[in-house]
Amino acid sequence: MNPVRVGIVGLGRLGRRHAENLAWRTPGARLVAACSPVDEEREWARAHLPEPALHANYGALLADPSVDAVWLVTPTSLHAPQIVAALDAGKHVFCEKPLSLDLAECDRVIEAHARHAQLQVMIGFVRRFDASYRDAFERIRNGAIGRPFMVRSQTCDKNDPDGFFVRFARTSGGLFLDCSVHDIDLARWLLGNPRATRVFASGTIALHEGLRECGDIDNGVGVIEFEDGRLAVLYASRTMAHGHDTQTEIIGTAGALAVGRNPRVNRVEIADEHGMRNACTPTFFERFEDAFLSEAQAFVASLAHGTPTGLTLDDAREATRIGIAMREAYASGQPVKL
Amino acid sequence: MNPVRVGIVGLGRLGRRHAENLAWRTPGARLVAACSPVDEEREWARAHLPEPALHANYGALLADPSVDAVWLVTPTSLHAPQIVAALDAGKHVFCEKPLSLDLAECDRVIEAHARHAQLQVMIGFVRRFDASYRDAFERIRNGAIGRPFMVRSQTCDKNDPDGFFVRFARTSGGLFLDCSVHDIDLARWLLGNPRATRVFASGTIALHEGLRECGDIDNGVGVIEFEDGRLAVLYASRTMAHGHDTQTEIIGTAGALAVGRNPRVNRVEIADEHGMRNACTPTFFERFEDAFLSEAQAFVASLAHGTPTGLTLDDAREATRIGIAMREAYASGQPVKL
Amino acid sequence: MNPVRVGIVGLGRLGRRHAENLAWRTPGARLVAACSPVDEEREWARAHLPEPALHANYGALLADPSVDAVWLVTPTSLHAPQIVAALDAGKHVFCEKPLSLDLAECDRVIEAHARHAQLQVMIGFVRRFDASYRDAFERIRNGAIGRPFMVRSQTCDKNDPDGFFVRFARTSGGLFLDCSVHDIDLARWLLGNPRATRVFASGTIALHEGLRECGDIDNGVGVIEFEDGRLAVLYASRTMAHGHDTQTEIIGTAGALAVGRNPRVNRVEIADEHGMRNACTPTFFERFEDAFLSEAQAFVASLAHGTPTGLTLDDAREATRIGIAMREAYASGQPVKL
Amino acid sequence: MNPVRVGIVGLGRLGRRHAENLAWRTPGARLVAACSPVDEEREWARAHLPEPALHANYGALLADPSVDAVWLVTPTSLHAPQIVAALDAGKHVFCEKPLSLDLAECDRVIEAHARHAQLQVMIGFVRRFDASYRDAFERIRNGAIGRPFMVRSQTCDKNDPDGFFVRFARTSGGLFLDCSVHDIDLARWLLGNPRATRVFASGTIALHEGLRECGDIDNGVGVIEFEDGRLAVLYASRTMAHGHDTQTEIIGTAGALAVGRNPRVNRVEIADEHGMRNACTPTFFERFEDAFLSEAQAFVASLAHGTPTGLTLDDAREATRIGIAMREAYASGQPVKL
Repeated sequence: MNPVRVGIVGLGRLGRRHAENLAWRTPGARLVAACSPVDEEREWARAHLPEPALHANYGALLADPSVDAVWLVTPTSLHAPQIVAALDAGKHVFCEKPLSLDLAECDRVIEAHARHAQLQVMIGFVRRFDASYRDAFERIRNGAIGRPFMVRSQTCDKNDPDGFFVRFARTSGGLFLDCSVHDIDLARWLLGNPRATRVFASGTIALHEGLRECGDIDNGVGVIEFEDGRLAVLYASRTMAHGHDTQTEIIGTAGALAVGRNPRVNRVEIADEHGMRNACTPTFFERFEDAFLSEAQAFVASLAHGTPTGLTLDDAREATRIGIAMREAYASGQPVKL
Repeated sequence: MNPVRVGIVGLGRLGRRHAENLAWRTPGARLVAACSPVDEEREWARAHLPEPALHANYGALLADPSVDAVWLVTPTSLHAPQIVAALDAGKHVFCEKPLSLDLAECDRVIEAHARHAQLQVMIGFVRRFDASYRDAFERIRNGAIGRPFMVRSQTCDKNDPDGFFVRFARTSGGLFLDCSVHDIDLARWLLGNPRATRVFASGTIALHEGLRECGDIDNGVGVIEFEDGRLAVLYASRTMAHGHDTQTEIIGTAGALAVGRNPRVNRVEIADEHGMRNACTPTFFERFEDAFLSEAQAFVASLAHGTPTGLTLDDAREATRIGIAMREAYASGQPVKL
Repeated sequence: MNPVRVGIVGLGRLGRRHAENLAWRTPGARLVAACSPVDEEREWARAHLPEPALHANYGALLADPSVDAVWLVTPTSLHAPQIVAALDAGKHVFCEKPLSLDLAECDRVIEAHARHAQLQVMIGFVRRFDASYRDAFERIRNGAIGRPFMVRSQTCDKNDPDGFFVRFARTSGGLFLDCSVHDIDLARWLLGNPRATRVFASGTIALHEGLRECGDIDNGVGVIEFEDGRLAVLYASRTMAHGHDTQTEIIGTAGALAVGRNPRVNRVEIADEHGMRNACTPTFFERFEDAFLSEAQAFVASLAHGTPTGLTLDDAREATRIGIAMREAYASGQPVKL
Repeated sequence: MNPVRVGIVGLGRLGRRHAENLAWRTPGARLVAACSPVDEEREWARAHLPEPALHANYGALLADPSVDAVWLVTPTSLHAPQIVAALDAGKHVFCEKPLSLDLAECDRVIEAHARHAQLQVMIGFVRRFDASYRDAFERIRNGAIGRPFMVRSQTCDKNDPDGFFVRFARTSGGLFLDCSVHDIDLARWLLGNPRATRVFASGTIALHEGLRECGDIDNGVGVIEFEDGRLAVLYASRTMAHGHDTQTEIIGTAGALAVGRNPRVNRVEIADEHGMRNACTPTFFERFEDAFLSEAQAFVASLAHGTPTGLTLDDAREATRIGIAMREAYASGQPVKL
């Protein structure tokens, strides 16, 4: 079988992780091109990747006929137009989450994909590829907890005392669209893709007062009502003291599953004057390191064999739609109907 | 010091526990009387308690001058009038939670107490006397987690396949007033008694369809907004498969505390073909067995020494007020201002 | 039924705990007398106990006809003669572990008991009365792990930087007789009372060099071979940094049970810059607080109803015998046959 | 930098894992050849690996000048002669543990290596490359637990009801050389490579009576005394009900570390009628999947950069020497001096 020839776009911290996974650890993939407008990032690619063609310009990458698929790890505001351009250039697309902060943009991507149905597009909801989440999903499918009716899920980042992220608050889409979008996607997936009917949200600023001027918060909670009485309760935070703490619980009529209740960084436990403890994953990188690799392997396998990954553009649009509703609910103080 | 002479009222399962604690394990207390209209319950008292005077009639107990304090473990609808009567008879009062399902009744009790300020009344929010919750409270007070700003708390009972509780749904006040009232009190206590400003709730019937006709649910969630951006997210359930699972998390600007994340029944772990596991507390009885004793000891010590327990009638009224608001929010689908 | 009238002997830290349990929390018991040669200890009794007769002299206590049972919490070297004297005075006896450090003394007690078979004597192997150990025992009896063939058990104390215990090293019997004697008794109990055939031991001084001159160690390990290929591996330490850490594992042909793998002090977990942790039980007092009470209740119930506690003088003698063998094996560097 | 060209030898289950790691996931390596006398294994290589040269004969592989390093995943009895032959052919060598079951053979390998000091040889003590063990090692080096003085370590396999391994008992070297050899190496590594002075061992047959005729056991324990009073207590078993359970504890004067106390297979916890539980790693494959990859990456990086891996042939010889002593101690019932 011919390898899938991939061009990576964006070589920030996460882009480099994707690039290395594609270059060295994804059977069936060949990283043939890398694109970044930043000199230093192309320099990194020259030093660390297996001789990809280097482009400062996205158009040049798309014009390269030796590229089968583009791998977008770019700012969110670029996602939708870059996906559309890639599809029009005849390339498959992997794109980091979220698809877009704007529903009309989501729709334009979906329309473009309809025009190029033979191409595949996947948005990187990486948790679906984490071994523990996958195990939970399989157990649910096999009936381990009866009928699942509630998901409780959180995405909580370790506090950055410098509040670096405050500067990006204007473009991130806010806490719910930046963080909870993962939990929204998980909740839909684990509950069997029910239709969301209503959303409520609340939140607070615990530490980063700078968020106030753009209407954002550093701790937020939300309730999503789905059809048939299914529920999700979400929590997102940027102020954890102990590390990156992503957890999800799925409650069913005959049992419950929890994923990641203790964000242990490894299998070491320490007994000392502080008691009995374990260190925690500092960032989502350490927590989802293996999942980023599985995700790449899954999408490449899907391109090679034409098998679906189970993750559609409609899923990505729905995550954005519900995230926007949560933001509105928070801003208005009222439940938002969907 | 003279012992506090106690008369227990109500000898159902929980009443018997209180009676035995007062009879055998509460220094400074003497169980001198027991009251129940049920023959069989008085029979049990005769066989198991140290010769208390037995009364079928509450008035007779109140008329007994050798009783210093009454201990009410009676149906919720009787709480308020029985407390008022006891105060008017010059007795101290311990009363199981909740104070009442009705705010006007709460106020009548508070007025009665104002007329008898030398008497003490305590509503049994037992979790405040649990060693783990107490430890969490002390740690917070000592600054272990910085400023606490969020509580997540749940009261989840093991499913009773017979749905026994469905028959009591009309008089229990519903899921939020029966179960979440504990979490409401905990949240206020652990967050420093902030004023609640708004409440939202949602819920579903997972198993017990019989609840539908009285507007109740078997799984419910709620969000409470307090002043200063403090938040509580509550969950209550009657359908757990694994046992009684009461948990509380308190999140602060410098750390977080969790109480009871794994409802382990004891220190035994079992490794077998099911993996590595522990058994769970079947009911709140096993989980709070020690706390019921500490509670009795604390109230008796308070009566003996005149020291406050930190738990006031206003706390009990506030728990009822917020619980009613949660029920309204669920029924109306709208946030309720307080 | 008439209460069992108890006289406590020895009012050090552990003696006071026993005294309070007997005075306030043991149905069927009445603490009628207390004996200590130390003025201050009798003073404490006067202030904290329900008016027991106070004796400075053990003989005076034994002469008191209103005492049914003596409760010995005295130095180990006094155990055997005090038990014999009590039996000869017609009293039942509870005595703290170990029975004696000397086998001939053990035999003298057993002979005395044979002369007074209507009296009961129990040595306080408190762990048999701990709810978790009891649960493990019941599970084994019910076949949960098939045939149990190995016990791994440890008694590890928190390090006392002052090395207070070093001063008692000469009279304590050494690490194995002072600490491992608990694990020896547990191993025999949990494995179905097999006969020990051979013992090996090793050890080291990690911190307390002062032990060297009396041939003692602060960390020791041992292997006990029982008939039928059953095994026990023991560990004892005086130098833990995190707290008192008593654990036991029982391995069977169809599963394994662990008791106390994490010596958590309660149900609180703390998430902060140190990671995710729990505090640990500082001493055996906190770990076995409830077990001391259950032990007292069990022995008093046994006196009242004549039912056996399952714990015999032969068990206590066997624990001493194996502990002595471990000490010999350590001293000689050779396995010791039994 | 030129990639290291590797030839894999032996394509059983573990050999295939190594082959895939080298082929797809080890930066700096190229799998250029594969050798197996088994047709079906070479067939597998043809179908799953990136076109390596295939050899039925080890000599042919060694004659191939395009091979820089051989990777031996062959039966233990072949290890020593194959390593010597590879060194004489000018190849670097990775070889699965143990180096040999025979000390004289170990010495012959060490002599051969002395003749070819420019070549590197590493025996695959894979646990040294596991992220958790590595973290523990670093913490110890950084003083987290003061001076480490005791290691408790176990290698316990899930019971195979078919007793497949019984057939290999004659050639495996027995329980201690097959399983405990890992723990021996860990203990030396984590305690700072002290010299072992004496060994004691005991054991039993819990399930597999077929082992008796070749003097082997299915559950064994051992004590290793090192110089300076350091100690190791080891346990190995073939009869676990719950899975592969490898654990290690390192106890120091200021704290303790535990690695793998709960052999959880992932981050999922299940709450159902069995209580609260997690599934366990079924075999060492799942437990050390990442470590096998890190090991390959570390050795390849070492070949590329000439940096040592910290793991020497003397380490491997010492593990065999102590393992043999444990077997002798078990057989003789006496401590064995080293």
